[in-house]
Amino acid sequence: MAVYTEVSDEELVAFVDGYDIGEVVSCKGIAEGIENTNYLIRTRGGTFILTLYEKRVKAEDLPFFLGLMDHLAGKGIPCPTPLRSRDGDLFRPLCGRPAALVTFLDGMWPRRIKPEHCAGLGAALAHLHLAGADFYLSRPNDLSVASWRPLLEASLAHADEVASGLGEELERELSELESAWSATEGLPRGVVHADLFPDNVFFVGEMLSGLIDFYFACNDVFAYDLAICLNAWCFEGDRSFNITKAHRLLTSYRKVRDFSGDELAALPLMARGSALRFLLTRLYDWMNTPQGALVTPKDPLEYLAKLRFHQGVRGPAAYGLE
Amino acid sequence: MAVYTEVSDEELVAFVDGYDIGEVVSCKGIAEGIENTNYLIRTRGGTFILTLYEKRVKAEDLPFFLGLMDHLAGKGIPCPTPLRSRDGDLFRPLCGRPAALVTFLDGMWPRRIKPEHCAGLGAALAHLHLAGADFYLSRPNDLSVASWRPLLEASLAHADEVASGLGEELERELSELESAWSATEGLPRGVVHADLFPDNVFFVGEMLSGLIDFYFACNDVFAYDLAICLNAWCFEGDRSFNITKAHRLLTSYRKVRDFSGDELAALPLMARGSALRFLLTRLYDWMNTPQGALVTPKDPLEYLAKLRFHQGVRGPAAYGLE
Repeated sequence: MAVYTEVSDEELVAFVDGYDIGEVVSCKGIAEGIENTNYLIRTRGGTFILTLYEKRVKAEDLPFFLGLMDHLAGKGIPCPTPLRSRDGDLFRPLCGRPAALVTFLDGMWPRRIKPEHCAGLGAALAHLHLAGADFYLSRPNDLSVASWRPLLEASLAHADEVASGLGEELERELSELESAWSATEGLPRGVVHADLFPDNVFFVGEMLSGLIDFYFACNDVFAYDLAICLNAWCFEGDRSFNITKAHRLLTSYRKVRDFSGDELAALPLMARGSALRFLLTRLYDWMNTPQGALVTPKDPLEYLAKLRFHQGVRGPAAYGLE
Repeated sequence: MAVYTEVSDEELVAFVDGYDIGEVVSCKGIAEGIENTNYLIRTRGGTFILTLYEKRVKAEDLPFFLGLMDHLAGKGIPCPTPLRSRDGDLFRPLCGRPAALVTFLDGMWPRRIKPEHCAGLGAALAHLHLAGADFYLSRPNDLSVASWRPLLEASLAHADEVASGLGEELERELSELESAWSATEGLPRGVVHADLFPDNVFFVGEMLSGLIDFYFACNDVFAYDLAICLNAWCFEGDRSFNITKAHRLLTSYRKVRDFSGDELAALPLMARGSALRFLLTRLYDWMNTPQGALVTPKDPLEYLAKLRFHQGVRGPAAYGLE
């Protein structure tokens, strides 16, 4: 939670003047999101989110991210729609950063996840995968298998301080995944969200009302996106796996976009890969976040427990499927 | 900027259900305010601010603070109106803290202050002073002259690390103010805001649209409230005094509530007192805020410069009055 860049009222008025949404009447920094600066803005024309892209999001990726949101919103996916300025731009400079205005979505992200949320998520993810099919840009997944070894090497020297034997365990898992990953090459692929954690999904009651934060979106295997959701939505606070939630997630996905036998068979491998990916980035952040920083790093060991669960999975029944 | 207390969606829904404002459709933590946790909430019935009172605000003071806002809003002062729950309460427990819902006010606080803002402020402050006259509760100013010596003593050991000779200078000033302060006893008094800094005053364009954050409000001398505003609004970034801004503030106040010759004569003393009060609390926070805390302490020396300016004032002409 943070506002990294303070925007003055005059800069804001000048920026918003470049859009056809009327005069600004209110602007509040939002204490959510850990990568960018976000303001909730009300103008005479409605309510919007203003995002200033801080270091992590590269300006050269913005045409992909914002173009994708524009494309998906046009196909009825409940994601923020980027506004075009009077000059037709999807993003423009503000306080020395690229910045964009997007529509505001109602809803709250679920702090306590129910099976009904997982059902809504599954259907929405499948619709997203279908809707992305004819998007005209592409972007490689720079946090896929090729990135994991450098990430591990950057953390290896201190990994055992986080958990005894962790370095060796991750080395072994990474080697296995590196050799197995090529088997995923023939799987159905397209645009994936790649970060669909609960805080990126809004609900009003039990109805899904919004998908946000497309700043990890890329082209990859659809099953990998499902695996990220399995990890992010179907484990309990005590790190146990909730098969009911997985069942609801996968079956409601499948009603919208059926997956092949190959995709189903690959799911445990995908789930291990996605667990390792978040484990490695969290491990890196854990070691490299200065004490007292605005952002509290997330516990990497949560993902070690998830990784170990998937290592023991022998077939789709473990995920609640026949 | 901080959200100290995370409210789950279920706790929020249950809390809002106690009011007659319809279902919650959105809730964002606001990265503003340094004392309490604030959420911007949209329901089917409108937009509101939810405040959870953290340590600094005492629950026993809430009837005064919220009752005052209710009273002032009823008299047309543009301040948030606290909502009453179905049970008639102005505040209720949420996540182990007292919490209140208030109406949302349009507007932004001015990051770069213009003389026009000071004119709007002066009139609004005078209206506030008049409107508070028949408020039925009272609350002493616990940050007035009697509190300054204990505050100074708590910081004295390290004051000279902030600026050489600071401890001695503040000791001398405090002794002078302590003996002079009794002269203020006969001045007109009533409910004062006592913290009307620019981030507590909203404007839409140059029109004042809101006064917020009544959590230092108390009964004191009106001229002291004016002096706080002189200090907070009429100095430039380089610590120079802007007499044009002071002139606009005081003359537009005076058009709504004229001040007596005694009040005018007391203004330099009031301004010294208010400068010392903020200097002392900032000095205390400066020394007692852990490194890397969510809140960055404000520079106490800004108020030393202001104090010295007022020490040199010989009459109202220095503030732009005849």
